[in-house]
Amino acid sequence: MYRTHTCGELRIKDVGKKVTLAGWVQRIRKMGSLSFIDLRDRYGITQLVADANASADINNEISTLGREFVIQALGSVAERSSKNSRIETGEIEIKLLGLKILNKAEIPPFTIEDNTDGGEDLRAQFRYLDLRRGPLQRAMHLRHVMSQETRKYLSSVGFWEIETPVLVKSTPEGARDFVVPSRMNPGEFYALPQSPQTMKQLLMVAGYDRYFQIAKCFRDEDLRADRQPEFTQIDCEMSFVERDDIIDTFEGMIKHLFKTILNRDFNEPFMKMPYKVAMDDYGSDKPDIRFGMKMHEITDMVKGKGFGVFDSAEYVGAIAVPGCAGYSRKQLDELTEWVKRPQVGAKGLVNIKIENEDAVKSSIGKFYSDEELKSIAESAGAAVGDLVLIMSGPARKTKIALGTLRIEMGNRLGLRDSSVFAPLWVVDFPLLEWDEETQRFYAEHHPFTAPKPSDMDKFYSDKKEDLEQVNADAYDFILNGTEVGGGSIRIHNSDIQERMFQVLGIGKEEADYKFGFLINAFKYGAPPHGGLAFGLDRFCALFGGQDSIRDYIAFPKNNVGRDMTLDAPSEIEKVQMDELCLKTVSPAEK
Amino acid sequence: MYRTHTCGELRIKDVGKKVTLAGWVQRIRKMGSLSFIDLRDRYGITQLVADANASADINNEISTLGREFVIQALGSVAERSSKNSRIETGEIEIKLLGLKILNKAEIPPFTIEDNTDGGEDLRAQFRYLDLRRGPLQRAMHLRHVMSQETRKYLSSVGFWEIETPVLVKSTPEGARDFVVPSRMNPGEFYALPQSPQTMKQLLMVAGYDRYFQIAKCFRDEDLRADRQPEFTQIDCEMSFVERDDIIDTFEGMIKHLFKTILNRDFNEPFMKMPYKVAMDDYGSDKPDIRFGMKMHEITDMVKGKGFGVFDSAEYVGAIAVPGCAGYSRKQLDELTEWVKRPQVGAKGLVNIKIENEDAVKSSIGKFYSDEELKSIAESAGAAVGDLVLIMSGPARKTKIALGTLRIEMGNRLGLRDSSVFAPLWVVDFPLLEWDEETQRFYAEHHPFTAPKPSDMDKFYSDKKEDLEQVNADAYDFILNGTEVGGGSIRIHNSDIQERMFQVLGIGKEEADYKFGFLINAFKYGAPPHGGLAFGLDRFCALFGGQDSIRDYIAFPKNNVGRDMTLDAPSEIEKVQMDELCLKTVSPAEK
Repeated sequence: MYRTHTCGELRIKDVGKKVTLAGWVQRIRKMGSLSFIDLRDRYGITQLVADANASADINNEISTLGREFVIQALGSVAERSSKNSRIETGEIEIKLLGLKILNKAEIPPFTIEDNTDGGEDLRAQFRYLDLRRGPLQRAMHLRHVMSQETRKYLSSVGFWEIETPVLVKSTPEGARDFVVPSRMNPGEFYALPQSPQTMKQLLMVAGYDRYFQIAKCFRDEDLRADRQPEFTQIDCEMSFVERDDIIDTFEGMIKHLFKTILNRDFNEPFMKMPYKVAMDDYGSDKPDIRFGMKMHEITDMVKGKGFGVFDSAEYVGAIAVPGCAGYSRKQLDELTEWVKRPQVGAKGLVNIKIENEDAVKSSIGKFYSDEELKSIAESAGAAVGDLVLIMSGPARKTKIALGTLRIEMGNRLGLRDSSVFAPLWVVDFPLLEWDEETQRFYAEHHPFTAPKPSDMDKFYSDKKEDLEQVNADAYDFILNGTEVGGGSIRIHNSDIQERMFQVLGIGKEEADYKFGFLINAFKYGAPPHGGLAFGLDRFCALFGGQDSIRDYIAFPKNNVGRDMTLDAPSEIEKVQMDELCLKTVSPAEK
Repeated sequence: MYRTHTCGELRIKDVGKKVTLAGWVQRIRKMGSLSFIDLRDRYGITQLVADANASADINNEISTLGREFVIQALGSVAERSSKNSRIETGEIEIKLLGLKILNKAEIPPFTIEDNTDGGEDLRAQFRYLDLRRGPLQRAMHLRHVMSQETRKYLSSVGFWEIETPVLVKSTPEGARDFVVPSRMNPGEFYALPQSPQTMKQLLMVAGYDRYFQIAKCFRDEDLRADRQPEFTQIDCEMSFVERDDIIDTFEGMIKHLFKTILNRDFNEPFMKMPYKVAMDDYGSDKPDIRFGMKMHEITDMVKGKGFGVFDSAEYVGAIAVPGCAGYSRKQLDELTEWVKRPQVGAKGLVNIKIENEDAVKSSIGKFYSDEELKSIAESAGAAVGDLVLIMSGPARKTKIALGTLRIEMGNRLGLRDSSVFAPLWVVDFPLLEWDEETQRFYAEHHPFTAPKPSDMDKFYSDKKEDLEQVNADAYDFILNGTEVGGGSIRIHNSDIQERMFQVLGIGKEEADYKFGFLINAFKYGAPPHGGLAFGLDRFCALFGGQDSIRDYIAFPKNNVGRDMTLDAPSEIEKVQMDELCLKTVSPAEK
């Protein structure tokens, strides 16, 4: 061992001890004849000091040191004259008796401090230096603890962690697969799993009863901001359960994580909100319930008063933004521009300001009396001093746009505090989604998601309107407006599965080709089962109070799927291509 | 929940309770008017009984049941008249009050019993049924516990589990990479990691101090028996440590696993055996020390007596096989044939039988006196009743062949009891291996393995003989003759690394191309570090007392790398190939 102690553990009680530390030089300060070195490792920072008694050798060594040099320091623990209460070792320092350079370091391309001066690309390229910084070390530690506590909890309630393969079969469903050419089977490919979904269902057929896995998943998608081609799921499945058994079990896990990691207690059950309510009240299937500002439909109230935009609208909805009655014309114009951007896609924005008990101002004042405006504002839940914002148009599209505006106003008003946690289950999702273009239904989740038992009549109806109303036994776990997990009860009955394929317009041959092994497995005694998966990267980021998942992944890819540290992907040698019986063609040759 | 209890938990104290169970029909027996059903789930088997009081409905349902049907049973717990002490629920049975078929099952293609009648291919194809059998459930559970206890122990001594990426850079070193074409970077490929080796070294540079990961690794090798293209490692690395710090840490982990999983105590430190001793005494770098039968060199004793084979041999070695002096001519001929097979590759086999105090018989009796034969036998450690087996030839090759024979004799004599555990560290491996064909040195382990500090002079010598004698700071963990883990102290000093590349004949350009990102990282303050990795699949199999790792992997590949359950690999659609800018060529076109 190169050390007797870490840089984070010495305290006032250790004064007088002779110790050896090893770590990285954080900074060096000279004060007259004294030299101070902050020595850093994963555990903390300890101050080394070469005082008047230090040997010439030590002082010579110190004069050659630079930032990030790796050194070994021998010395005795002494009480500091000027203590530093910001670090845990701040009451002591090490009076140097010896110092050895274990490794030199070139000057790092950015500062290794909590707030660094490095740009994103540079930090990605030198990820091993970025990872030395406090915020990333804390992120990696949080992730470690999340993983261990997840496993501990699930093991304690009878789940077995079972590894499923990474080289699996390509199925042309869902997102695009990453594929792996097979040298031993030329012309054939493995796929990397988009999730262990089918494998975990096989494990239920195999009687494993309670399965989990912290599993790598892969999707070859064009990367949107903050998506990764490889990501990690807490993947789970249970047998002989109904929806609330699953929700209760994993609510237990989530509460365990909140308690052990953030020391937060949630004594009440999490709210369960039907999808329809989420869309009506929040314009989103992942509502952020840290703040109110709920949406209110005012369609009936506003029609027939001569305002054509509202008269022709399928839906008119309003939110009451607290304390913003004083918004200037300029601010309101800016907001209107904001909602007109393609990302929101609204046509316009109507406002009512409740300036005081008597004064109501509105952009649609000429169509509505003050009383009418007041009563609209009241319906939107507005009080004196509030700003009512109103959107109109096709119902679904407008609700989503108004929900987006709600989130924006929440951000602007500081209502989305990352240290507040508002967990929520969204339930009763539609089973099917009608696609106008292809004039057919698609599965909202996947074709193995079960209809709610209470909707079984409608599921067997021939009418499109009935089928549209069938809800799935599916659920999402939402934290602070972010979808962190989701799952469903699966179909285990072959008649219902057959009906599902029929509704989706999937013929027997197609079903066999795509899902043959699973359908076959289901013939041999499949238990009722269901499960869910949590996005671990996202879960960690939320627990850490951060928006981006990248800091919670040791070596993330950039937004063109490149690992800047390893410089992957890269060309491979011709002999490798030959062994795989593969040739690259230019896009033109395809 | 479809049940109030599992099939493994009801006991005599529960008699009188009304319960609901769910599970699979293991078997049905009729005895007059009584029907018995063994109901099985992951937790056990419980007997259901429909007696004279059972309703006609129940009896009707029972008459439609088949093996592996999934049922839900309502009943009251009763004491059995004839108890079954072989199962934990054997004192009770459930008197049926209701029975519901949750799912039917086709007749399984093999019996779901501990000893099944299914062949290997059939069981691979129907893996989800094979996984229902007791031995596989126990194997999966053992693996689950091994994984959790490994994590628990390593976390408790300060290791952080950090996930490294699966889509990495292809490096033309070591085994063959599986590659993944990048759609977003046409013509470029990711590789799947053969191990997280370079990534974990980057994490040490990043200051993570103690890292572990239970990580999937991938090697596109022609599969020998019991190798898998994807396998799992317990992968670990530590900073500021020397060899014995690492060995002590992981010996702690191994002892923890032995204690918690098998309830075995190892109070003494595991033996550390130098590689040279292992080769001399056991003819193997992974000696099985559950039994003696050590090899003894007798080269000097046997030369010059007119037996040409020995006179010209570089090495002559012997083992004493206990109690086998009575081997017949036929048995000895068979053994000789056995060692002549290409897998062993010996030229022949000489024997001496110590039949009693006075009678010594030998196949080389005409060259050696009885006294000489006795003294040879004595050197081999033989006692009366033993059979001495002797091989000769080139030293290394002959030692390995004799070591292989030793293992075979251990098997034949039942000395390799899978319930006995003999752990061992093999240390002081050669750093370099001379390749006659290319007339250059190769790294035995990998080019980042450090020479032993005590061999540094020889490491800088220009003489081939000196370099051949340099030992590496490397170590393997051996259990019962199987290599379960291995690792090394890495080079952290750039001068030593440069010398290593020089010795290996790797130029600067080549080194940069192959290991550029790691060499670069090492410029910014790499700490002294080292680590090791354990093969989890193998570790589990040994703990389970089995030879094959396949039962410890939920969905293993067969020996041409095919997943028989999922039917992977498979052809992919042309549109996928086009998106990847790839074309398959026939071997002839290459």
